[in-house]
Amino acid sequence: MMSEIETKRRGRGVRKAERTKKSLRFLPEADRGIPYIDLLNEEQVARIHSETINLLWSKGIEFRDDEAAELWKKAGADVKGHRIRIDEALLNNLLKTAPEQYTLSARNPERSVTLGGRKQILTPAYGAPNVLDLDGIRRNPTIKDFHDFTKLGHMSPSMQMSGGVICEPMDIPVPKRHLHMVYSLIRHSDKPFMGMVTARDRAEDTVEMARIVFGQEFIDKNTVKTSIANCNSPLVWDQTMLDAIKVYSRANQAVLFTPFVLSGASTTASVIGSLVQINAEALAGIAFSQIVRPGVPAVYGQWIGAVSMKSGAPMAGTPEIDQINLLVGQMARHYKLPWRCSGACTSAKIFDAQAGYEAARNLYGAALAGANFILSTTGYMEGALCQSFAKYVVDAEQAELTHKFLKGIDFSELDEALNAMNEVDPGGHFLGTKHTLENFERAFVIPELMHHDSFEQWEAEGASDLNSRAITKARQMLNEYEMPKLDEAVDEELLDFIDRRESELPDLIL
Amino acid sequence: MMSEIETKRRGRGVRKAERTKKSLRFLPEADRGIPYIDLLNEEQVARIHSETINLLWSKGIEFRDDEAAELWKKAGADVKGHRIRIDEALLNNLLKTAPEQYTLSARNPERSVTLGGRKQILTPAYGAPNVLDLDGIRRNPTIKDFHDFTKLGHMSPSMQMSGGVICEPMDIPVPKRHLHMVYSLIRHSDKPFMGMVTARDRAEDTVEMARIVFGQEFIDKNTVKTSIANCNSPLVWDQTMLDAIKVYSRANQAVLFTPFVLSGASTTASVIGSLVQINAEALAGIAFSQIVRPGVPAVYGQWIGAVSMKSGAPMAGTPEIDQINLLVGQMARHYKLPWRCSGACTSAKIFDAQAGYEAARNLYGAALAGANFILSTTGYMEGALCQSFAKYVVDAEQAELTHKFLKGIDFSELDEALNAMNEVDPGGHFLGTKHTLENFERAFVIPELMHHDSFEQWEAEGASDLNSRAITKARQMLNEYEMPKLDEAVDEELLDFIDRRESELPDLIL
Repeated sequence: MMSEIETKRRGRGVRKAERTKKSLRFLPEADRGIPYIDLLNEEQVARIHSETINLLWSKGIEFRDDEAAELWKKAGADVKGHRIRIDEALLNNLLKTAPEQYTLSARNPERSVTLGGRKQILTPAYGAPNVLDLDGIRRNPTIKDFHDFTKLGHMSPSMQMSGGVICEPMDIPVPKRHLHMVYSLIRHSDKPFMGMVTARDRAEDTVEMARIVFGQEFIDKNTVKTSIANCNSPLVWDQTMLDAIKVYSRANQAVLFTPFVLSGASTTASVIGSLVQINAEALAGIAFSQIVRPGVPAVYGQWIGAVSMKSGAPMAGTPEIDQINLLVGQMARHYKLPWRCSGACTSAKIFDAQAGYEAARNLYGAALAGANFILSTTGYMEGALCQSFAKYVVDAEQAELTHKFLKGIDFSELDEALNAMNEVDPGGHFLGTKHTLENFERAFVIPELMHHDSFEQWEAEGASDLNSRAITKARQMLNEYEMPKLDEAVDEELLDFIDRRESELPDLIL
Repeated sequence: MMSEIETKRRGRGVRKAERTKKSLRFLPEADRGIPYIDLLNEEQVARIHSETINLLWSKGIEFRDDEAAELWKKAGADVKGHRIRIDEALLNNLLKTAPEQYTLSARNPERSVTLGGRKQILTPAYGAPNVLDLDGIRRNPTIKDFHDFTKLGHMSPSMQMSGGVICEPMDIPVPKRHLHMVYSLIRHSDKPFMGMVTARDRAEDTVEMARIVFGQEFIDKNTVKTSIANCNSPLVWDQTMLDAIKVYSRANQAVLFTPFVLSGASTTASVIGSLVQINAEALAGIAFSQIVRPGVPAVYGQWIGAVSMKSGAPMAGTPEIDQINLLVGQMARHYKLPWRCSGACTSAKIFDAQAGYEAARNLYGAALAGANFILSTTGYMEGALCQSFAKYVVDAEQAELTHKFLKGIDFSELDEALNAMNEVDPGGHFLGTKHTLENFERAFVIPELMHHDSFEQWEAEGASDLNSRAITKARQMLNEYEMPKLDEAVDEELLDFIDRRESELPDLIL
């Protein structure tokens, strides 16, 4: 289990040779240049708000943690056991300090990004207990898979974070796993990353490792990671998530407050009904973060799947998911809060046309809805239960298309284009014009993994499907990967910290 | 070649047994309930309009047909040879009579649909010289393939037309092919259809066959088909297309005036530059139709592909196509004209993940842009050069998702959903509630061809990919197909007409 890290220790003397030799292409956050799509009128927004307040006051919401209940009581909520009832004045007052946008600082300042308002970022998928590997085998993930996904994220221009629990490295005991995932995210990429949330000490260790990298003073003033806390819908924030929320919020680190909702199961079977519940759950979570530390970045989260009545399994790429994304986006803008949803989700078991249809529809819908933090942009399969290397690199390319789409059009190009049009007569063509030669490559995105040539050319090249081209591309990227620079003393301190924590932690949870 | 029709003639006696035994599900035009996305402000719309007028006046546009030039001259244009220069007053005056929306009457009145304004229809792909058949073989299409695609269109609830030149039946000589395609569209479906445009007599034969079905008086007052005329960009309407335009417009039948544009080749390599040219070409075509017959329905068309600089091949599913769709939609609304674009396009050679990504992105973009006539919703492969049976049925299912998405949300569901929420406590679930049981199926679209169950379930069921499930579905549909009722005298007259025209037409074009 320690072999990867031991190899690294032995190699420290030659690390200088690993320093980045060529600069990577990187797209910062998309600065949205296209309008929003508002499905609700003002009166309807006001109604959703008032029904949310009504729900939070009449039924209330459970925060199943004594300390959280105590904090709510001090803040002025009506508290009975873990049932918290929040009135409008208290909610509004708490939300006031939550920032509309925030900057996620990376250890390489060139990779820092801002999200919220019109700024949208795209990030990898999260939490898969299986991988579909480069040989097409579906199996348990290892820490090597985790490293490899982090490397792909580091190299993908459109990924604005390296990731979080990209997959579950099953070769490392659960109590120690977080140390190796966080180290991998820090070591193999210099982009911002996500923290661990499955136990209080794992969140604390994540914060500690960030302190080692950035320094105490820096992380107290700056947000260097964003972690995910799922609401146990309907209307429960449980102890584990609240522990992580408290640790991160106190440390000035952002949390995605995400009702993870299966519509028809954990909400009503109604898009508009789901909205009221999601709104109540997310806002209550964000309000709580502002009790813990006023001004800490907090993201309005949302993950919804409609449930297949045949199996209870979640579905992606359906119209109701597009609708709820648009609705949540509109409510988040109403509250001036950054928000997240997921993109490129699919229930497909292999990287076939189903994966393509569902992922494209889902990602495009999330981007159009204006999500500021699009999680699960890459690799997501099987309703989050599997992570595919092939799909990762294709999704990352699709994310570049999405990034370009979000920027909108450049009207200032018109004059130059009109001049070029003057040169060409009816029936002529523009292929050889100076304007075409100068502008083509930046005017149009050409997705490299998609095959646009003729059938005959495609056949001559081996009649490949997208899956096999993507596997080739992923292998090539991993071969060309260069580890980003990390201060040796910092690396040493991280490894020492991991050693110490490993000796303290059990291999099994008793 | 005549064997199919001869078989039918022999079978006339038993035709009654073929009459429709069960009613088919049918979705009429989508009545858009979601907002538009305007990329341009008012000033920018005015600028595009004025640059369009400037182009049509200073450079002009070619109508390469003497009669057309004569008609333009009489209407008041500046005409030199085939070069037509149109000023703003003339253009505006001609556009005034073009209707904002129109009804496409089907021979089964229950299948008639309206398009324009907020009403959007979805229709099959067009013009493929290859098919990817149910055995996965790519080959030349036959008339049997054409029949089969028409049958699938007839049975697909989301297809509001049976199609046009769905594929090129190569087993029938070119001069006679149109007769068999139009007969197939009329005979195998009772939905509205598209007419043939590749020669004047083919357009005339199409109108004549519509007359046989609907009667002269009816088609003179009603539009029963919509045909496609491609502009030879840049700025040329050629003789063949003008012949078809004249025939259809005189007969009160709608035409899609479509600049078929490869950006960077037949327009400048600029999205906004392309818009001015497309606008000029489409508006000049529509204006011409109003000279031929004031008030005839005319559709603002648009098909754009960015060209891969590697091969000159068109690309689908890229952000610039989404952008130009949004831009053209906004201009068409400015002129209060119905408009078309294409959906579900892909360059993929097989029905793999590339096909899925590109088709989904393209269709969703076209629908969001508000296209009133979405051509190529089904089956499109290889940049229009191939038509796939498997993709046809999947695209048709995706079209149902799109149809639902376009309708928007039903806010009136809220009260009932809130009542259901009252019944469930924090930590509970909604699966067994009366509201879920009553609402689930209509609340969420469940795409039947997508596999949402667990990996284990999927493996146990044979580990199928979407392609193989779609082939099974297409075979099943063709097995279950029932020919819609057609008056026997009408059928007889159609067949007699085909016999006569076949005897008059050559097998080869000399």
